[in-house]
Amino acid sequence: MDIEELKPLAQMLFDDIRALSSDGVGVTRDSYGAGETAAADYLRAFAQREGLHVEADGAANLVFRLGGAASDTPAAWVGSHLDSVPQGGNFDGMAGIVAGLLCLVAQQRAGRASPVPLNVIGFRGEESAWFGKAYMGSGAALGKLSADDLALRHRQHGRTMAECMAALGADMEAIRAQQPLFDRARARAYLELHIEQGPVMVARGLPLAVVPGIRGNVRHNRIACLGEAGHSGAVPRWLRKDAMFAVAELIVRLDEHWRVLLERGIDLVVTTGVVTTSPEAHSVSRIPGTVSFSFEARSKSVETLEGFYQLMRTECKAISRDRGVRFDFDRRVDSAPATMDAGLSELLAQQCRAQGTPFEMVASGAGHDASLFANAGIPTGMLFIRNEHGSHNPDEAMDLDDFMLGVGVLAGTIARL
Amino acid sequence: MDIEELKPLAQMLFDDIRALSSDGVGVTRDSYGAGETAAADYLRAFAQREGLHVEADGAANLVFRLGGAASDTPAAWVGSHLDSVPQGGNFDGMAGIVAGLLCLVAQQRAGRASPVPLNVIGFRGEESAWFGKAYMGSGAALGKLSADDLALRHRQHGRTMAECMAALGADMEAIRAQQPLFDRARARAYLELHIEQGPVMVARGLPLAVVPGIRGNVRHNRIACLGEAGHSGAVPRWLRKDAMFAVAELIVRLDEHWRVLLERGIDLVVTTGVVTTSPEAHSVSRIPGTVSFSFEARSKSVETLEGFYQLMRTECKAISRDRGVRFDFDRRVDSAPATMDAGLSELLAQQCRAQGTPFEMVASGAGHDASLFANAGIPTGMLFIRNEHGSHNPDEAMDLDDFMLGVGVLAGTIARL
Repeated sequence: MDIEELKPLAQMLFDDIRALSSDGVGVTRDSYGAGETAAADYLRAFAQREGLHVEADGAANLVFRLGGAASDTPAAWVGSHLDSVPQGGNFDGMAGIVAGLLCLVAQQRAGRASPVPLNVIGFRGEESAWFGKAYMGSGAALGKLSADDLALRHRQHGRTMAECMAALGADMEAIRAQQPLFDRARARAYLELHIEQGPVMVARGLPLAVVPGIRGNVRHNRIACLGEAGHSGAVPRWLRKDAMFAVAELIVRLDEHWRVLLERGIDLVVTTGVVTTSPEAHSVSRIPGTVSFSFEARSKSVETLEGFYQLMRTECKAISRDRGVRFDFDRRVDSAPATMDAGLSELLAQQCRAQGTPFEMVASGAGHDASLFANAGIPTGMLFIRNEHGSHNPDEAMDLDDFMLGVGVLAGTIARL
Repeated sequence: MDIEELKPLAQMLFDDIRALSSDGVGVTRDSYGAGETAAADYLRAFAQREGLHVEADGAANLVFRLGGAASDTPAAWVGSHLDSVPQGGNFDGMAGIVAGLLCLVAQQRAGRASPVPLNVIGFRGEESAWFGKAYMGSGAALGKLSADDLALRHRQHGRTMAECMAALGADMEAIRAQQPLFDRARARAYLELHIEQGPVMVARGLPLAVVPGIRGNVRHNRIACLGEAGHSGAVPRWLRKDAMFAVAELIVRLDEHWRVLLERGIDLVVTTGVVTTSPEAHSVSRIPGTVSFSFEARSKSVETLEGFYQLMRTECKAISRDRGVRFDFDRRVDSAPATMDAGLSELLAQQCRAQGTPFEMVASGAGHDASLFANAGIPTGMLFIRNEHGSHNPDEAMDLDDFMLGVGVLAGTIARL
């Protein structure tokens, strides 16, 4: 059958799930909570109606395969996440699960399984918005959750991650022991389709993109620049230790380095999301004595992250010397980048070309469950669907035609594994 | 008599006034309040003991002259303010009144009046900390308070400026009518001695400085830079509208212009005292969509203020174009600079030279009652005394020897008018 014929089915699935998880503003599918479970129950019922086999894994994630298919054959896994942020959009996560299910439905209806059997997995708990920790469902499946993670509390009701997982029947003993519930030997590939969460594809007019890698990051949540407060009228430039001018110079220097690195083809984004003079002390006529700010660099390359981080520290030293200020750093936090499998990326690209769909390679700046699979040594590939207005908001806008192009690429790729 | 002999008297006056206005941390002499009145009552009693004449003017300011001196002779006026900020220092304002009184005491004790008779004035209400408005006492005396000013409320007890003035016997009818209570024709000169509120004289090793002018300023209390928020990982540099990077670039450009203008000998200070990403929306992984900040430039020259202000607006336009952001400005607020009388400044300088006291010309960045007298067309001169740790804090530190050098210059200048 032609996968395009499943477009009305896709429309129905998205509409139904949006309706059942609507919060009046956007959708809310809280991790290990009512909204996420409602979506899971809906998909389970739908899949069973289609004759598919559905089961929960040891971490309460949902696994779908063809009715009658053996569970122990090495398979191609297609997955994404069931949950959303509060007042989020309908496509972030759900698009990947629906895409996988459409591929399964096509095989089931045609009565023809792919040479490498297809398993679809709907992860619970990918969004950090609820417990302050991302990749909970895939992390549990891969044995990566720590005791500290499991003790994290839900931002609203305050119950721990472990309690919420246990209530859904997860195997807490195995999860606590960091025992992989997912058998890597049974995974020939992990593929994830996801909406782009940035504006690149819209700007470039690309319905699809193949993701060569997922950026890691290095962060300081809070750096304090300490100068010397003073009367704005009475202290001349040569005697100032203006913390705000120092931080502004740091930002501009980082921006200049960033621009040069981009011109050399290096993957990097740099953000100072939080910058503030001291709310207790600042005033229009007072030279800022203290400024606190955050620093984040993201790149596909560990070397770039490390190099840019050291550049930032060096610039802080130079500015300290020039301006008589001091920089105090909180704990450095690292998150590893992930590289997608070159062979799978090439297969995805070939399918795009075969379909005549314009695409480019676009790195993912946001994190995904796929990064855990890639870093666990499982060949992993990712496909982005064009999406307007970013994600984590009710305005995210994926065109269903773009989505069906992506499902076609996914189905074709699975068939050729 | 040698004015140096009055040093123990100066010590006593400062010590007594510090003790009666101590708040446990610094001194608090609230404008038109208990602390200010206690200092005024103390000085009135002291002056009367010395045989001086004391009276309040129509704005409840305190006027001192030699016993038996005529009140209608054109006089040299020496003044400063009685009040302080909350938890302030003992010398800001009070030094100028004590200096004037020592000159009067010297004349009284020697039985020899200066050729131009000396009047000393202790202003109430100079500090903007209490009612959000500076120069209340001198402003009332010169007929410069508006109905809006008089309706301003005290930050603590909430009573209006007018109520507080009236309670001290001020002539509210005249003040409301903006009728000058101070007869310009009776002022041959206005002289003010004040501690420096910046670090220039300490850095240069100067006990005294002659003030050629008082800086005016141009301000925006709040400028909003509006860009576009976004996922820090998912939006590449070329698609960003990062409000924080834009504001950082503006600050650095202003700093560069400032440095060049200083090298050309232009008087200017530039401050962005308040800068903050949006507290409701900012996060480490979010590109700042909004940054609000303050702008202040101060200069002795109106032309410099206007030129630098236009430069700032032009840079905002350029950055808007480059970075896809927008700047929204609140009301521009101007405060006029004041130029001291060249003849009086030269007399002060000659006295410094005659005494062998190192001095330089140092512009005042902070505002003073003197600026109102200068802008009212009264020949005005100012003398700064070296002071450590700035002002408006309990740590301000004026050496009494420096102060006595200043009193000597003041007395010598008065004698030569």
